[in-house]
Parts: sequence; C-alpha cells; structure tokens
Amino acid sequence: MAEQSGHAFDQAWLTWPELPKGTKGTYRQPWMTRVIASSKTDMGQTASRELQRGLERLFGVNIEILDQMDQGESGVWLGTLANFRLESIARDISVEQMADLEGMGEEAYAIWPLGPGVAVVGASDRGLLYGAFSLIRQMATMTSLQDMVGQNAPANPLRMLDHWDNLDGSVERGYAGGSLFFSQGQVLPPSSRLTAYARLLASVGINAVAINNVNVHGEESYFITPKHLADLAALAERFRGYAIRLFLSVNFASPVEIGGLSTADPLDEAVQQWWQDKAALIYSYIPDFGGFVVKADSEFRPGPFTYGRDHADGANLLARALAPYGGLVIWRCFVYDCQTDWRNRKLDRARAAFDHFVKLDGRFADHVILQIKNGPIDFQVREPVSPLLGAMAHTHQMLELQITQEYTGQQRDLCYLVPQWKEVLDFDTYAKGPSSTIAEVASGKGLDRRLGGIAGVANAGNDPYWTGHPLAQANFYGFGRLAWDPKLASTQITAEWIHQTLGHAPLLVDALSSMLHDSWRIYESYTAPLGVGFMVNPGHHYGPNVDGYEYSKWGTYHFADHHGIGVDRTEATGTGYVGQYREPHRSIYEDVQSCPDELLLFFHHVAYGHRLGSGKTVIQHIYDSHFEGAEAARGLLARWQQISREVPAQWAERVAERLAWQVQNAEEWRDVVNTYFYRKTGIGDERGRFIVP
Amino acid sequence: MAEQSGHAFDQAWLTWPELPKGTKGTYRQPWMTRVIASSKTDMGQTASRELQRGLERLFGVNIEILDQMDQGESGVWLGTLANFRLESIARDISVEQMADLEGMGEEAYAIWPLGPGVAVVGASDRGLLYGAFSLIRQMATMTSLQDMVGQNAPANPLRMLDHWDNLDGSVERGYAGGSLFFSQGQVLPPSSRLTAYARLLASVGINAVAINNVNVHGEESYFITPKHLADLAALAERFRGYAIRLFLSVNFASPVEIGGLSTADPLDEAVQQWWQDKAALIYSYIPDFGGFVVKADSEFRPGPFTYGRDHADGANLLARALAPYGGLVIWRCFVYDCQTDWRNRKLDRARAAFDHFVKLDGRFADHVILQIKNGPIDFQVREPVSPLLGAMAHTHQMLELQITQEYTGQQRDLCYLVPQWKEVLDFDTYAKGPSSTIAEVASGKGLDRRLGGIAGVANAGNDPYWTGHPLAQANFYGFGRLAWDPKLASTQITAEWIHQTLGHAPLLVDALSSMLHDSWRIYESYTAPLGVGFMVNPGHHYGPNVDGYEYSKWGTYHFADHHGIGVDRTEATGTGYVGQYREPHRSIYEDVQSCPDELLLFFHHVAYGHRLGSGKTVIQHIYDSHFEGAEAARGLLARWQQISREVPAQWAERVAERLAWQVQNAEEWRDVVNTYFYRKTGIGDERGRFIVP
Repeated sequence: MAEQSGHAFDQAWLTWPELPKGTKGTYRQPWMTRVIASSKTDMGQTASRELQRGLERLFGVNIEILDQMDQGESGVWLGTLANFRLESIARDISVEQMADLEGMGEEAYAIWPLGPGVAVVGASDRGLLYGAFSLIRQMATMTSLQDMVGQNAPANPLRMLDHWDNLDGSVERGYAGGSLFFSQGQVLPPSSRLTAYARLLASVGINAVAINNVNVHGEESYFITPKHLADLAALAERFRGYAIRLFLSVNFASPVEIGGLSTADPLDEAVQQWWQDKAALIYSYIPDFGGFVVKADSEFRPGPFTYGRDHADGANLLARALAPYGGLVIWRCFVYDCQTDWRNRKLDRARAAFDHFVKLDGRFADHVILQIKNGPIDFQVREPVSPLLGAMAHTHQMLELQITQEYTGQQRDLCYLVPQWKEVLDFDTYAKGPSSTIAEVASGKGLDRRLGGIAGVANAGNDPYWTGHPLAQANFYGFGRLAWDPKLASTQITAEWIHQTLGHAPLLVDALSSMLHDSWRIYESYTAPLGVGFMVNPGHHYGPNVDGYEYSKWGTYHFADHHGIGVDRTEATGTGYVGQYREPHRSIYEDVQSCPDELLLFFHHVAYGHRLGSGKTVIQHIYDSHFEGAEAARGLLARWQQISREVPAQWAERVAERLAWQVQNAEEWRDVVNTYFYRKTGIGDERGRFIVP
Repeated sequence: MAEQSGHAFDQAWLTWPELPKGTKGTYRQPWMTRVIASSKTDMGQTASRELQRGLERLFGVNIEILDQMDQGESGVWLGTLANFRLESIARDISVEQMADLEGMGEEAYAIWPLGPGVAVVGASDRGLLYGAFSLIRQMATMTSLQDMVGQNAPANPLRMLDHWDNLDGSVERGYAGGSLFFSQGQVLPPSSRLTAYARLLASVGINAVAINNVNVHGEESYFITPKHLADLAALAERFRGYAIRLFLSVNFASPVEIGGLSTADPLDEAVQQWWQDKAALIYSYIPDFGGFVVKADSEFRPGPFTYGRDHADGANLLARALAPYGGLVIWRCFVYDCQTDWRNRKLDRARAAFDHFVKLDGRFADHVILQIKNGPIDFQVREPVSPLLGAMAHTHQMLELQITQEYTGQQRDLCYLVPQWKEVLDFDTYAKGPSSTIAEVASGKGLDRRLGGIAGVANAGNDPYWTGHPLAQANFYGFGRLAWDPKLASTQITAEWIHQTLGHAPLLVDALSSMLHDSWRIYESYTAPLGVGFMVNPGHHYGPNVDGYEYSKWGTYHFADHHGIGVDRTEATGTGYVGQYREPHRSIYEDVQSCPDELLLFFHHVAYGHRLGSGKTVIQHIYDSHFEGAEAARGLLARWQQISREVPAQWAERVAERLAWQVQNAEEWRDVVNTYFYRKTGIGDERGRFIVP
C-alpha cells in the first residue's frame, strides 16, 4: 500500500483502501457508480457524500450523485421511508417491508435490491446515515449483495462514549494525547478534527457522547451556566449533524459550589428549583441535550450521602429537572468505600455496587439509567461480570465498558478488548431465566425496560492516530459495533476494521486478526494471574507492582502469603460476595473445584500447590503464564514485522515502537511477578527456567 | 505561660520566655540592665538591639542602650576588638587575650568579665553578632558568668542551609508550607518575615544560604541573568545584615539552555568565557555572592558526563569563573545511576559516590568543595556514614545533612535528628589515624584543608511555625548549633532550644527533652528495620510500602525472600562496598558477627532466624521493634498531654495534632511491616501478639 501523509491517518477506519484489482473486477457491479440521493436534508446529504466517498475510494473511480433516478437507470438509491413512499421507483418494495422497517425505530435502515441496483432506506435520516456506512463497510469486506439484503436496527437505544476530559486539555486515564474538546481552560470551537471524530462515531452507530470527566471539579462545574453553554452548544450542533446527542458530566454539589445555595440536599425545594432552572437554561442552548452523567459519593466526589439521602433521591432530583425536555440522568454505580481498612478481610469492595443499589430497585424515576461497570471492581483484564447487571427488575440499566486501556496496557501494550467484551455480553445473568444475557439486560429488552445501552470510556484524543497505539483503534471501532449489535462475532468486527483501515491482503487480514485476537490473553498471561487483579503501580496503573495496592485503602488485595493467595469471597467462609449471583453461578463460583481457573483467585484463597482445572499448580501456572506471556509479547513484535510492509511506513513504525515497549513491559512483569512469588514461596520453577532470586 | 498571638510563633527560639521569678531573682545581676554599644556599624547596632531585646524578655524589664560607658558604671559592653582597643575601659583585658581572639578568625567572639559586668567582644562585627546571641542563649539557660567566660569560634568555615525552593513557590521535599523566597514565578521582595528568618539563622551562626532547588529547571536557570539578579541582590542585602552570604544553585547546561551556545562542554573556550561573563555580572549585583551549588549528572540533571568530561572538569570550569571574586563551587557528590536494574544484585548504588569521586582526588580547583551526604544512600533514618567523607586528602569536602524530614516523618512524625547527626559527626573515619572524626573531616581541620563545613537541607517554609511540626524547629536549631560546634552535647542543644522557645519549667524542659531524644529511635523502630532503609511509598516517601522500591530502577532494595533479608555488601560475597571503608570499619562491617545490629541488613543478607547481638532473631526483632515503636509513638502523645499546658494553647494543639497523626502512621507501619514479614516467612510472633494475617 502506498505511503500516506500524516493527516490521512485521521481517517482511521474510514480510510477505505482500494479493493485489489482482481477481486475488485469480480466484485464490482455496473450500478456501483452512481448514488441517487433522495433525502435532501443535511443528514441525508451527508449520507450521500459518505457513500460517494466510500465507493470512490474502494473502487478508485469517480462517483456521481444524482438527485433522482431516471427510469431504467440503476445505482445506489439513498432515501428515507418518507422519500421512498414518494418515489415512483419504489414500487419494487412491498408495503409490508416498509411497515416492518418503520416498526424497528428511527435508527433502523434496510438494504434492499432495487432493479439491478440497491436501495439504502432509512427509517429516518439517522437510519439512512447508518445505512450508508453499513453499505460501504459491507462492500469493503466484499460482502455479496445477497448477504447485505435485509433490515437492521441497533440492539441498544443508547450507544455512548464517555470522555474523561478536563477543561485544561488533559484526559484522565487518557493515553492518546490531549482532549479533543478542551484546551487550556477553553472549550475548543468546532473544527474539522471534531467533524472527523463525529464521522467516526456515526460510522459505527454511536449516538451519544459525554465530553467531560465524571470527576467534575472547579471550572467544569460551570459548564451548565451561560459562561460555557454557547461554546458547548456549538459542539452539540456539530455532533447533531451526525446523529449524536451531547451529554455533560455534572457536579452533584453544584447548587453549593456554583449556585450559592447552602445545601445540595436533593429533598430541598430550593435545590430542586435550582436544577430545574439549570435544565431550562441548558435546553435553551441545546434543544436536543442528552442529559447528565453523574459520579456521586464515589472516590471523594460529593453526593446525596452528604445530606443523609440515598442515590434514588439524588438521581431523581436531576431526572425531575430534565424529564420535561426528554433528558436522561445516567447515574454511575461505581460507588464504594475507597477508605477501607486492608486489615479487615471481611470488607469487600466487590460487594459495594450491589449492596448500595439493589435495595433501591423501583425507586428510580423513569428518566434515570444506572450505568454499571462490567465487573465489580474496576476494568481489570479479568473480572467476573458484575452481579448488579440484571439484579434490578424495575430500574433502567446500562453497561459501562472501558475502551481506554487504563489497566490493560494503556495503549502501549496491545490488548484487543472485543473478545473480553463478547464474554461479558454473552454472560447469562439468569435474571429472567436462561438466555438473560448481559447483552439482553443492557439493552433493556431482557428486562422489558424501555431504556438501556452501552457506554464506553473513550480511548481517543488528539493523537494523530486518535488512540496512541494505532491498533487501539480496533477497540474504538469494535466498541461501537458491539454497542450496535452485541451478537456480532469478534472475528467479523476485526475483519471489518482491518479491511476499512489498512487493506485487503489476506496475509495482512489473517495475521493481524490473529494478533489482535491473541492479545488480550497474552496481556492477561503476563500480568496479574487467575483473576486476582491489580498488582499494578498505584496511581498511574501501568507496569507491575505486586504489593502496590496490597496495604492501601483502595480495597483491592490479593492476600498472598507464604502458603497461598487469593480472596475468599465465598458465602461459606469468605466475604459472601458470591451470594450476589443467581444460580448456577452462585454454586459454580462458591466451589473451588467448579470455579473457572481464570477467576479462581478472585473467588478463593488457595494454596500455591492447589491444582487448577488445567492440571497445573497455582504457582506453576504463575510461572508458566509469565514466561509464556513475555515470549508471546515478543512474538507479537515478530508477527508484526512479518506484515508491517503491508501498511503505511509511519503506521508500521508507530506500531513496532509500541510493540517493542510491550516486550520490555512484559519482561518486567514476568520478572517482577515470578521473583515476587519465588521469594515468597521458596518454590522454584519445575521446568528450571531462570527466575531472578 | 500566657497565650500568644499567632504571629509571636515566628520568633521560634528567639521568643526568650521570661525567667521564672524566683530563679530570676537569684540569677540576675545589677549590671544586666544596661547595654553599652561601642560598635556603631549596622551589624554592631543589630547586635546591641538583639541583646537589649533578649535581656528585656528574659528579665521583664526595660534595658537602656548607652553609647559609651562612664567610669565606674557597669553593664554588658558590646564591641569589636577594634572598638575595644580604643576604649579606655578595656584596660582590664590583656593584650594576649586580644591577640588570641584575633587569631581565631573574624567570626570569633569572647565573653570576658569587665569590672562588675561583662564584655562581649567580637573579632569583627560578625563575631560580635554571634557573641550577643551567645550571651542571651547562656542567660536563658541561666549559665553562670564564670561558665560563660572565654573565647569561641566556629569549628566550620561554612555553616550553610540549602533550600530546595522553586520559583513557583513550591518546595521540593518541603513540609512547612511554601517558599520563603519565591511565589508564583516571582522572587519575593525582602519582607519582615525574611528578616525574621535571617535573625534565626544568625542566632545559631548560619553564614551561608542557597535559596533555590538543586534541581534547576526552566525559569530558575535565568537566576544568573539581569532578569532576576536585581531581585536576588535585594535578598542578598537583607541576609548580609545578618552575616549570611547568598548562594545559588545553577544549571550546568545553562550555556546551552539560556546562553544560546551549542555546548556546555567544560573544556570549550566559549563555555568558559560564558561562565566568566556570568560571574562578572553576578558580582556586579551581589559583591559578596557566595557561589554556586551544583547537582550534575544526577537524577536526570545534566552534567559534564554529557560531554565526555569528568566532575573535576565540570567543577573547575565554574570555580575558575568565580575564583577572582572569592566565590565557591559547592559540587554535590550525590551522583549515581538511577536507571539501575533490580535484577542485578552486584550493582550497588551505595558504591556510587566513592567510585565516582575518589579517583578525582587532587584534580579539583581550590575554590571547589565537594558536598557529601552523611550516608551512601539518601538520608535514611539509619545508614552507615559515607566512606567518601575523609577519603580524599587533597580535596575540600563538606558534610550534607537533611534537616527537612524527607525520610524521617516529614514533620508530621516527631523525629529529632540531633542525636543522629551527633553519631555521624563522632564517627571516626581513620583518615589520618584515630580521631579523624567526620566533624574533623568536614571542618577541613582533620585533613589540613582550608575549606569545609556542614550544609543542611532546610526544613523551614512559610508555615506560621516555620517548620510544620513546631517541634521540628529543634532540628533547625540543633543543626545550626552543631555546625558551629560539633562537640556540643545534644542534651545541651535541646535544653537551649526549649529554654529559649517555650520556657523554663523543669517539668517541661525534662519531659520535652526526653521526648525529643527518644524520638529518632522510636521512628527507626517502627519503620524499615536494621538499617535496610527505604520501604517507603515511592515518590512522596511518607508511610510504609515494603516493596515500594523493591523492583524499581532506583537501586534501593532489601531482597527479602522467604528465607532472609538484607543486602550483601561484603567484599567476600557481596557488592564489595565494605571495601570502601578504612580499617577497622572494613573488618567490623564485613563480618556478620561484628557488624552492629542497627546496620546488619545494610551490610548483610541473613536468614530470619539469624541471632542479633541483642540475642533476638531478626524476625523477632522486626516484630518487637514494630510493636514497641507503635506503642512508643502513642506514648509520645501521652507524654505531650502531660506537659502541653506549659506551652501556648495553639502550639500545644498543633503538636498534639501531629502526634496523633504519628500514632496512626506508626500503627500503619507496624501492621504493614509485620504482616508483610508474617506473610512472607510464615513465622509468627513468639510472644503471640496479633499480626494481621
């Protein structure tokens, strides 16, 4: 593939590399040269231009956009149901088909054969935009027309990115440069870069974005005032063109901190009025404002507990203010005591979200959605699924994933998270009997709830590659695709991303896909073993530090001693956390014999000589996985060197540089973890490999 | 004692509480009501006013200052040798006495009987200032006139404070508020607070102060340019009134970073000319400028190594520039590799200073002084004395102590360092046979060197009590007193400080003195055991973290495993560091049997069952010392509660608050360290006390 200039990198998976000559000849149809744009709205025009651009790039030809199709001509017809019903050409499509599509909601689209060509029909302009990107995506992967045909609607009402960006331009847990929205205390005016970002989001169906850090401090508290609202409205407008609603994180203590009130008590009438006034103000600037994201009573952020109220009181306060305008309150369940005592083994941070929230089921207003992290702790490389997901039949819930790789290599180490997320989404909560998967729970469907969705903590910043590690774009892409359709196979998502981003050579697609798919388990193998988590350097969370959090107040321990390791969370002898699960998980996790190896140390404290399901002892597993993990990290670099000539040189170099860092990091992990346990246990490697004494 | 307003606290040990009525009646002599000020210089007048103030406060009376003494009158006569020789009254003093005093140098003073009164005679005005403070100090401790009589001169030519203050007002390793000299990017104009600080310094004989951080970054590199020199000259002038010379820390890379040159190579003529020009400029603003303090090739600071030169080249470059004006280069020997590999047990940071510098002996210019930390690592609560001190017969050396409590409780925990410093000063290097103590080496006398001294990293800031923990003032005071006279007993220093600061009640003096004297060993007992050092939280260095630095690049390890702990620094089997000592230390440290208990783990890796000289095993010592240390910390609080009514309420509360923190910190240390070793060894406490499992 040809060299690209630096700026071309920001196309990411909208690069749409030209299809290879031979294949292209076979695949390309005569009608793939013309776009007939029936929707004349801005968003409809955007869809047409995207399709034009996609076809031009994929086929290396000029594509014309026509206003209407003449009899007998063919092409890609782009329109909404409303357009379709007006156009005479539409007679090929049945009334039933159209009614079906309409019933799937405004975001749905269909791809239907139309004469010798094809029609992309949106239930609305939003659906049309998604349909246009879908058609290009499918062409980029050379999907047959036959396989494209059908209707498609998102599984999740909310498909959201949460940015943890600060007004000074920094990004909490950001590994991809500075903020896309803020710099040096200013909200940035909308730029072509912002448009490029909105395109990326729309292309994978993201429809909501919270742009500021959930830890709302100082000046960011003033976002909901005239001081910043005009600037924020300009961003919202740019996003709106791509069917994305803007959300803001807010400070629960705002009535006190910026409002001059003496309290932020949710039951105080002046406080209630204050928030209502704020809502009216916000909607006067941003008529389709999405709502608030709130982190309250967590990690030193204020919340309703300050006033002796509970989280339902707190969330409902804000929901009542936003409801008249259709705004939502997204209330995070990441609430735990971060001042815990490591000496007390009965305290268990893993219990916190369930303990805090389940008892409030039914008390939340209809505009409140609880946002629940995938695991009970904090985005570790391996955690069980949070038992809170699906535990509240009368409460809107959504799943929170972390795309930014806080604990999974920080976009220096390759760690493709789509396989992890798939495991989470496929986990059966048994909330309403079998097949109540997390995917079903999060979307709301599984619990017959109107609202639901998936939020991901964003991994993009002003890095030229968007994500620091260029291959971390695949996490960004994959998140969006899974939020749209959790049933997608991760291999398909990976292939889509490679074809649209880098090219079509089978060697590249196959090798890179396997690198990506191996990477999560590789990262897991050289970091904290068997689900025990943490063992990272405190604060920044990169690199090994086995005891880094062991004697801290953060509630994340491994309890390794001379005899054994792990956290006893059983009901019989431990913290009782296991009891938060429904059967059969409860029994499976409770029993050290049936507990899956990869979660063993999360649920049990066992001797180093304990035999895993794999037949290995725990200590030997630690040694093996760390030796093998470091070796596999080296293998990733070697594998990249085999294929890197297939991608632009700068891209290839950036990836190679990151993979070389990863090799060092993996060796550091290997040596620190192995030495730590060798020093602690006195047990050597049974295969006699060198462990630093 | 009566309540004092907040501002009175800044008098510190110049509070001079009134002597108790009864005692005062006995002690006070009729001539203690009159000060005859013969020296008419500014500094002479300052001395007189200090004496007036001291007598007024101690005796609660008005004191008059007379220009000259009439025949038959008596009082405290204050003058220089030059004044003395002119005054007719001086006939009581012999020519020999005067010649003796003159021979002791300009900073010397004498207290001689004169008629029924007393004469304070300075060899110069500087000596006179020191004499005045000395007389007050002795009166505050009710020393008899007979015991006061005699000459006194400082043991050390340089008695220096090093401030690690930044232009933004922050203080590196500062625990006493912000900088006294800088704020928000500005050099502060001289204030009454600065004068108060200069008084404190002069009262204990400090004669040099470096006011900016040895890590010279960014804007601070411009201190030696017209941009800041006028502001700095104003500070220097204020200090000059108290016989203190101003030094600046400089950036070795200045010729490149601020000079526009392409190199800072010390052998480059343009670089040499650049520094000469800078010296001329500095002395045009500050005629008595003291010189430069330099941290080079250390912890990421640039230095001569960058240009393939050695530290003699680097230091001599600067010395040649300053020599024409009498300026000094104080070159720090804190040079080591902070990117070491924890896997390689033969690398030893403790060796670094000796290895780097001894080979350069004789190559340093006459205006260079090497500043050497007391220990080979970094200001730990317990380290052996640095073998570099006394190892260079042809090089000026000075001792560097850390008054600011970076590793010794950060002025939250009480840790009176005078006893530690006394041990250092009394350590015999055998540089020129027995009795070549560190005190002798540092002063220069022991090696027949013209220059020498003691520098202390300052512990004062803009805190109302100067030092955060009010009792940390005693470290500040004690440092100055020991720099003047390393032979002073620590009990005397402590008593002086209490009498001058807080009062004279025997209960207070005795109890507080014993609290202070116990505190270093208490702090040692609950932190890292047996000289092994570190085990602190990385970065900020407060609180326990046993493995905090264990797998880091900083070279500070304990190598604890299931069987044993400690660093083998022997010549026989270890890093060979022991070989840097002269006999008999070399043999004493080499042999695990003769090595002192408190340094055992610094020099040897031993099994937990190893018997100490005390008869305890290592593991039992760890448990005992940590249980006892935490208990003793609680005891400090209880002891303070017994005596706190004797001191002003705000003072008492501040101390009580700090001691309560210390109790918590000590318990945290106890539990973390005990649990760490219990988990690692599987060995319980033989006395059955509870250790968190």
